[in-house]
Amino acid sequence: MLDRYLPVLAWGRGYNRQTLVNDGVAAGIVTIMLIPQSLAYAMLAGLPPEVGLYASILPIIAYAIFGTSRTLAVGPVAVISLMTLAAAGTVGPPGSAEFIAAALVLALLSGLILVLMGVLKLGFLANLLSHPVVSGFITASGIIIATSQLKSILGIQASGEAMPELLTTLARNIGATNLPTLLIGSASLVFLFWVRKGLKPTLISLGMPARPADLTAKAGPIAAVAVSTFVVVAFDLENRGVKVVGDIPQSLPPLTIPLFDLGLWQQLLVPALLLSVIGFVESVSVAQTLAAKRRQRIDPDQELIGLGAANIAASFSGGYPVTGGFARSVVNFDAGAETPAAGAMTAVGIAIAALFLTPLLASLPIATLAATIIVAVLSLVDFGTVRNVWRYSRADFAAMAATILVTLGLGVEPGVVAGVALSLALLLWRTSRPHAAIVGRVPNTEHFRNVERHKVITDPRIVTIRIDESLTYLNARWLEEHVLEVIAERPAVRHLILMGSAINAIDASALESLEAINHRLADAGIKLHLSEVKGPVMDRLRRSHLPGDLTGRIFLSQDDAFATLVSSPDDEKIEQREDIWLARGLI
Amino acid sequence: MLDRYLPVLAWGRGYNRQTLVNDGVAAGIVTIMLIPQSLAYAMLAGLPPEVGLYASILPIIAYAIFGTSRTLAVGPVAVISLMTLAAAGTVGPPGSAEFIAAALVLALLSGLILVLMGVLKLGFLANLLSHPVVSGFITASGIIIATSQLKSILGIQASGEAMPELLTTLARNIGATNLPTLLIGSASLVFLFWVRKGLKPTLISLGMPARPADLTAKAGPIAAVAVSTFVVVAFDLENRGVKVVGDIPQSLPPLTIPLFDLGLWQQLLVPALLLSVIGFVESVSVAQTLAAKRRQRIDPDQELIGLGAANIAASFSGGYPVTGGFARSVVNFDAGAETPAAGAMTAVGIAIAALFLTPLLASLPIATLAATIIVAVLSLVDFGTVRNVWRYSRADFAAMAATILVTLGLGVEPGVVAGVALSLALLLWRTSRPHAAIVGRVPNTEHFRNVERHKVITDPRIVTIRIDESLTYLNARWLEEHVLEVIAERPAVRHLILMGSAINAIDASALESLEAINHRLADAGIKLHLSEVKGPVMDRLRRSHLPGDLTGRIFLSQDDAFATLVSSPDDEKIEQREDIWLARGLI
Repeated sequence: MLDRYLPVLAWGRGYNRQTLVNDGVAAGIVTIMLIPQSLAYAMLAGLPPEVGLYASILPIIAYAIFGTSRTLAVGPVAVISLMTLAAAGTVGPPGSAEFIAAALVLALLSGLILVLMGVLKLGFLANLLSHPVVSGFITASGIIIATSQLKSILGIQASGEAMPELLTTLARNIGATNLPTLLIGSASLVFLFWVRKGLKPTLISLGMPARPADLTAKAGPIAAVAVSTFVVVAFDLENRGVKVVGDIPQSLPPLTIPLFDLGLWQQLLVPALLLSVIGFVESVSVAQTLAAKRRQRIDPDQELIGLGAANIAASFSGGYPVTGGFARSVVNFDAGAETPAAGAMTAVGIAIAALFLTPLLASLPIATLAATIIVAVLSLVDFGTVRNVWRYSRADFAAMAATILVTLGLGVEPGVVAGVALSLALLLWRTSRPHAAIVGRVPNTEHFRNVERHKVITDPRIVTIRIDESLTYLNARWLEEHVLEVIAERPAVRHLILMGSAINAIDASALESLEAINHRLADAGIKLHLSEVKGPVMDRLRRSHLPGDLTGRIFLSQDDAFATLVSSPDDEKIEQREDIWLARGLI
Repeated sequence: MLDRYLPVLAWGRGYNRQTLVNDGVAAGIVTIMLIPQSLAYAMLAGLPPEVGLYASILPIIAYAIFGTSRTLAVGPVAVISLMTLAAAGTVGPPGSAEFIAAALVLALLSGLILVLMGVLKLGFLANLLSHPVVSGFITASGIIIATSQLKSILGIQASGEAMPELLTTLARNIGATNLPTLLIGSASLVFLFWVRKGLKPTLISLGMPARPADLTAKAGPIAAVAVSTFVVVAFDLENRGVKVVGDIPQSLPPLTIPLFDLGLWQQLLVPALLLSVIGFVESVSVAQTLAAKRRQRIDPDQELIGLGAANIAASFSGGYPVTGGFARSVVNFDAGAETPAAGAMTAVGIAIAALFLTPLLASLPIATLAATIIVAVLSLVDFGTVRNVWRYSRADFAAMAATILVTLGLGVEPGVVAGVALSLALLLWRTSRPHAAIVGRVPNTEHFRNVERHKVITDPRIVTIRIDESLTYLNARWLEEHVLEVIAERPAVRHLILMGSAINAIDASALESLEAINHRLADAGIKLHLSEVKGPVMDRLRRSHLPGDLTGRIFLSQDDAFATLVSSPDDEKIEQREDIWLARGLI
């Protein structure tokens, strides 16, 4: 029982020397990769670089205790950093004391929201974010992040959380470009792109096995950091206007108490909610992908608690909002991590770095960090998916395009909200006008097909409508209108059969509409019959007055319905025969 | 073409002497019934009584030109009057100049919203109001209205748009009850209840045919008005504290220009929207019921324009928000109205009353009007439906109960919003966790049924999941989790079949989830197959990569899928065979 809420108890029991070795190796590799990434994402979020390191220590340990994925690596990620910048930016200028305090409050709120959602089993709320919306949002965020980092590559000022302001400020200041910065930045960019695309094949062609080659390539940023820092020191580029990271305090994460300021909490609540849900969706899909590879399972409601604990830990240890990151988790998995202990050892590694290695980073040029961010986020930009969605579904494409355009034009929060609202509106619209077909019998079979697509047998006194959707309040009125329309066009009709083979549910509104249809058809001298009603739907209908009030019958099969009505010119002979249902064991 | 947007052109062409006579008779009867009702509803809305008459003149004519129902009678109704009171009450005290101005703005906004919804074909938005929510809202409104009118029966003061305040103020002032008022009020109540329940059977037993007996009974309020006015005058009860309607200006509707005040418009926009949608839903269901009785059709989008025109007319002629009323429309229909010309003649009748009859109404006691309102609205209170919904569906009952409780406790606007929000949340929740069954073959048949309910044939290497819901972004993640869970519990499984007989649609999110499931199962050494995919769903899937990427096959029938996989220990033999689909003419 306790295992379920403290997954650490489950995997901790079977821990042995071999697991320890595997986890230790993975932790070493991830630590090396995380140091520059953590600094870079903190910078992207408008925070001092050490905040990125702090956010990679305690949150990992909290997740290791409460999370259900064996291999997910939690910490700062690009999209959440951008959302933090946007949200905390409403409180104070990036880097200011109020801004840093707002980031802590965001982490705390996000943690509380996630834990609450987990305890109340509200994980399904994340379903409101459709794949196209999430994908569009991440693509747009990637474009914004890459654009925002151009300022550091050029060594100029620029600001804004959406494209119009970013591009305007970049264009305005482009004259002030600093040449040495531009050289370091573009060299880093070219090198990192090459490492990503070309290094692994080169290493493999030199005889290195695939996995170590892959891991070596992933450590490329460390080389860029080392070389560019050396260049800055060697040529004294700091005095030529190249901005560097500067002094980072040598310290373990400080104990921080997030401000309890109700006004601030209210201001940050909606951003924290969006950030939590986006972070959760991303993290869960990474965790599911990795768990499936080893036939493991993750529990999404417990994941909410794990990520919530990680964020609460971030808020009390000088960090900012975190979630499960794709890149770092894949590295962790590929490097052979078997349990969350690998995460805990990574945390120790980063803590050691925060204590002893930060002086080495003082002369690290910011342009290099910007280049690592650009290379990382451009892999998030995915126009292939945009094209696939366009081809597959115009409605999904509309939601995706709205998300991308609003995110680019107005910023991350309006973007997510627009995408969710439009997806929901389109879903409701589609559900409210379902597909329905008038069907007839395919000659010499018991199959009934659309009269417009097939040569089928019909009878002028009988019309059969097959509705390809559950009947709910969203389409109950449509149903009334549709049936009356069908009848108004066919004056000879005496029997209307609603074929229920695709109806998975009938709610109270639709039930009332069926009652209304029954009465209105009776006024017009037409009997209403049902056919092929599914078992669970019929179970429910039996609790209503409809079966008793129905002017016609409920037929087990459409074929039976059509055959009976065609051969019964005398309406009085068509009675409700529940005995058939009973005999076939269906009620 | 023009006929469609000006339905008057269609019915006007066939107008003849007989239609004129029928319409004229109906108009006469409706006019008599409408006079006290209009005064009473205006009073309920907190407006001077003549406003009710004005709202029953031009709006009827506007609807006659633009509306599609032949027999709908438009004018003030109880629920919309209550909503007007609640909304305009936020601007000024009932009866004040600001309050009256706000009522005009509400009518204009409501008219513009309705016309806009009609032009943009947004009638489906009304679908968001489920039957249980509307029914619950009307029941709760009926209770509030009846309670609010008790003050006039007792001759005391009371206020509030929800029960707590109403009951508190009634209790506080009950000591000030005016005895003559109470006598007139309760006598009117008893008489009107008797007229409603007992008069018609009495008349019929005296030999009067059913329809005239019914119409005579419906004219009962006129008798109550005449007698109680006579009593007040005869016994000079005005000087004994009996409140009367007082002087009503003898006038045709004045030309009024609604205030163009952006702040006021903004304040009233949401109330106007709710009022428009509630009014539209009520009106359309009345119009549909009546149209169906004569096999006529109404066009909901054109109805929006008709009701919108009526409200705009109300706003420019000293009225307040109107809609199609149930009681008056049924009287109009039963009295034999054939075309909207009956409505136009009713308008002329009420205009004559406004010009010449108002002096007769000066001594009409308000207690009698209150009694007519109470009798009318108590017929709206419908606990039978509450019971039926409880029996049929707990989810629908929850939405209904929330609507009733929030409306009673907090007022009409929060009530509608709570109901809509809860219905939507429950719908999304249900859609996000659909019914799914593991199925096996019923021996000696080609039918596949739930393994938990039936004795069926299965194979340890094969598992078939039938999902009884369309696959959308709401349940895409559930699908991934569900499939992985099924697999994690069955280590022997090599083939997973998703049976699509109940899947009416697959959106882009669900498609991506199917791709993910396909890859994850491949990682675990399991092939994914689909069976019984519906035609339109398959058409769409062909535009995606899924059919090509699928590790297994797409089978036409589940029986074929099971038989093929059971008899093929060699997985390599199971290939995609589109030729079968082609041969059967399905692609």
